[in-house]
Amino acid sequence: MNYADYIPVWNKLDENQRNTIISSSVRRTFKKGAFLHHGSSECTGLMLILSGQIRAYTTSSDGREITLYRLFDRDICLFSASCIMNSIQFDITLAAEKDSEVVVIPSETYKKIMNVSAPLANFTNEVMASRFSDVMWLVDQVMWKSFDKRLAEFLLNEAAIEGSDTLHTTHEIIGNHLGNPREVVTRMLKYFADEGMVRLSRGVIEITDEKALEELANA
Amino acid sequence: MNYADYIPVWNKLDENQRNTIISSSVRRTFKKGAFLHHGSSECTGLMLILSGQIRAYTTSSDGREITLYRLFDRDICLFSASCIMNSIQFDITLAAEKDSEVVVIPSETYKKIMNVSAPLANFTNEVMASRFSDVMWLVDQVMWKSFDKRLAEFLLNEAAIEGSDTLHTTHEIIGNHLGNPREVVTRMLKYFADEGMVRLSRGVIEITDEKALEELANA
Repeated sequence: MNYADYIPVWNKLDENQRNTIISSSVRRTFKKGAFLHHGSSECTGLMLILSGQIRAYTTSSDGREITLYRLFDRDICLFSASCIMNSIQFDITLAAEKDSEVVVIPSETYKKIMNVSAPLANFTNEVMASRFSDVMWLVDQVMWKSFDKRLAEFLLNEAAIEGSDTLHTTHEIIGNHLGNPREVVTRMLKYFADEGMVRLSRGVIEITDEKALEELANA
Repeated sequence: MNYADYIPVWNKLDENQRNTIISSSVRRTFKKGAFLHHGSSECTGLMLILSGQIRAYTTSSDGREITLYRLFDRDICLFSASCIMNSIQFDITLAAEKDSEVVVIPSETYKKIMNVSAPLANFTNEVMASRFSDVMWLVDQVMWKSFDKRLAEFLLNEAAIEGSDTLHTTHEIIGNHLGNPREVVTRMLKYFADEGMVRLSRGVIEITDEKALEELANA
């Protein structure tokens, strides 16, 4: 792997800093479903995603979930190292949605270099601003968009990620992405099926009228 | 004013950097209701709040509003200088809720120094992480908390800010804070009044049973 693919300011670090990062980093694999990070108690380190798919989500006190954003290869997991900043006062859970391979830079290593390197600190700023933008998009969605539009957009997005119109997922998993109870998802999917936009079978949702879903999502 | 009160890393900037900031900064006053910043098109600069009260909020395409956070004296407005980071892909509006006095550091000045100063870049990181935490709190609220609890908490919080149990505000303004239509606020306030928790008159909400509101908010 090439660190510069993940950290564009790599060449602005000095040789000593680069070597410290390389020698302290460890490669780890996470099976589908495994947790990479669980709330603020852990501070594993910054994760560079080599392959796979990571879901970042937040949980209510009674266990409901909503997806904040997804990370794919070449992305960086900042909140698995949330202890590098004092002002991060929230818990994010990171779980592998597919078998994933990551390189972990220990939080202490990263923090020590970030504290003295303006390029690395500014890069970290950009990563955080990017995640902040994702969450602001989510606020916009949950505040102002009706559930039918959000579900239509979610199905189209999943199909784009998978490169397939046939989605292997459950109504409960979709509910956990969107922050809604399973029954609400089931009811809306039945409506979509009645309208000919999807076909439903056990554990499978097949998109049958992409155009109609798109029109709904963008209405 | 003392810059070190706002920027704790002030003494880690060199004399030249400090003088550049001081000489380029301008003091501005905003009357209650005035906009300090309106979406991403403007990039006025970083604002240090000397006095007053600033509301940061986001708006739906059809004009509905929800408050993201508030800023008081000694706080810093980062998003009025959102152009200092490329990855900020969202619009925040900042408006004065009370007559406010601020010192504006031009975005270009700040960015130039942040790019070379690790302390200033790391400080900026902390400010952003703090606002990020505010927005994550909001996500938690709107996703998982029922409206009665949010309204009770809002009224208690307003009373704490004003130092008074008598709030001079309208149902519409409260709706704009919480992201709900005025009618929904009116209905819930009437329920609070029936329960003896508040007394309502034109343009005034008086908290009459703080304990009951607290119990509701924390239920």
